[in-house]
Amino acid sequence: MIHRSVVLALLWAALPVAAFGQTLADRLGYPAGTRLIIVHADDLGETHAVNAASIKALEDGTVNSASMMVPCPWFPEIADYAKRHPEIDFGLHLTLTSERVFYRWGSVASRDKVPSLLDENGYFHHDWDRGERVDPKEAELEIRAQIDRALAMGVRPTHLDSHQYRLIQTNKELFDVVLRVAHEYKLPVFVTRDWFAEHPYLEASLGADDIVIDHTVTIGPEIKPEHWAEFYIAALKNLQPGVTEFVIHPGFDDEELRSATRERASWGAAWRQRDFDFFSSPLFRQILAQQNIKLVTWRELSHAGRK
Amino acid sequence: MIHRSVVLALLWAALPVAAFGQTLADRLGYPAGTRLIIVHADDLGETHAVNAASIKALEDGTVNSASMMVPCPWFPEIADYAKRHPEIDFGLHLTLTSERVFYRWGSVASRDKVPSLLDENGYFHHDWDRGERVDPKEAELEIRAQIDRALAMGVRPTHLDSHQYRLIQTNKELFDVVLRVAHEYKLPVFVTRDWFAEHPYLEASLGADDIVIDHTVTIGPEIKPEHWAEFYIAALKNLQPGVTEFVIHPGFDDEELRSATRERASWGAAWRQRDFDFFSSPLFRQILAQQNIKLVTWRELSHAGRK
Repeated sequence: MIHRSVVLALLWAALPVAAFGQTLADRLGYPAGTRLIIVHADDLGETHAVNAASIKALEDGTVNSASMMVPCPWFPEIADYAKRHPEIDFGLHLTLTSERVFYRWGSVASRDKVPSLLDENGYFHHDWDRGERVDPKEAELEIRAQIDRALAMGVRPTHLDSHQYRLIQTNKELFDVVLRVAHEYKLPVFVTRDWFAEHPYLEASLGADDIVIDHTVTIGPEIKPEHWAEFYIAALKNLQPGVTEFVIHPGFDDEELRSATRERASWGAAWRQRDFDFFSSPLFRQILAQQNIKLVTWRELSHAGRK
Repeated sequence: MIHRSVVLALLWAALPVAAFGQTLADRLGYPAGTRLIIVHADDLGETHAVNAASIKALEDGTVNSASMMVPCPWFPEIADYAKRHPEIDFGLHLTLTSERVFYRWGSVASRDKVPSLLDENGYFHHDWDRGERVDPKEAELEIRAQIDRALAMGVRPTHLDSHQYRLIQTNKELFDVVLRVAHEYKLPVFVTRDWFAEHPYLEASLGADDIVIDHTVTIGPEIKPEHWAEFYIAALKNLQPGVTEFVIHPGFDDEELRSATRERASWGAAWRQRDFDFFSSPLFRQILAQQNIKLVTWRELSHAGRK
């Protein structure tokens, strides 16, 4: 019996999401072949320069969704803004790493309750790539603490995602923790089918009611600064049908952000300024119009998902 | 017997520090009447703008001592600098409040161990003026956690002081905690005889081996921006003999600091820029020379005190 149910579960999970009935675009009422994007700003709350650039991009309408890092010192600024702008599509960017050198943060949960998440000085680990053994129970405690702080401070998140994808792409145990907590708080989690091949446990854990984004686009360190716009233009022109989340990192290339990220150019101040510049450009709007690309938010996906 | 010893202790403590033998200036080998100052930058680690301005002022030689806020996100930046510059007179600015609105921090110790220090969202209280009941045992735990993190990160502090003077000027219980911890770590604590009248427990708790600064000068919100230099010039010209600590707050009036302090101008970005400007000015150096004012550091006071 156990074996048969496992086999059935695997078969079930292996079916494409569309086989459950409708695609996301269908549910939203768009005709087959429609191309939709979420233009999503990451890392709000990390620095003021990221908050300021993201707010400007959200207000100018070029970015239509974003997520916030609760453990970071500038979270109160963006939480206050979110509280005053309940119409904006803000999620929580669940954060269990503190990847910079000169500017760092630690857990929201009590330090002695989440020792596996913290380094010897009490900050989150720089990364989880050096054999750090993260206890899923501690990860759960910390995730709940981050959501609860956000709720207590008046934020009403529309979705969850994971800083540096660590909670999604590390292992099944951590992903199952996020999914369980997300179900409890009735929040969708950013997962895309693009990741299923490399991380088969994602598809295995997701249920028919979970929202799964069709594709994602994010720029990487292999793209030279002078090819920034070219990369995004190609991505927009080659966009596949369905919902694609553009994961972008707006920020202002100022003294604060340059100093906070100075040990490494990847996702640094100039990088974030380039993202801000492209997604604030008239060119970006023109391509959306020319290519008949529609914008969608996590809130809209949730509402459509609940139909 | 108990009564007699208490009376003796009170009498002993009530003697002026000089009555123990020598003044601080004597111990340093200066003739009677010499006027010495510590030009002390506060709040390092709080923001990058404060770190950058303080480092510049320390390197240009106009500021000769400073202290750092261990719980703040930019502490790693200044700790790294301190580690690479062991000759600089860096102390720890023990911090148990998080006084701003949009940019905040919490305890170094485990949250569940220091509940009386934290607000409902897990940040330090904005202040202790609304009936917050701070448990001295929790304050001690937090102070030790801050010192231990600094030591673990390679900082070798020369002194301790207290952010917003809260640990010194609130009550005897908290002051006794700081003094006990300071004795254990063999570090002097910034206390000046200027505060004895208003807070008699200070003099009562201090022993013959404790360093007590003669006077302190710090600018307040009652001084208009256009009278900034005038205030400091008058303070320097009217300086009393002995050791005076100038408690100053250098910072750059940039986007980060303006945003972090925007709800209140006192100790805000423009204030800190004015402090940076005056203490970096040729005028300040000229007055020191004209008035024959000598500079002294906490490290020198400690060495002299141990003679």
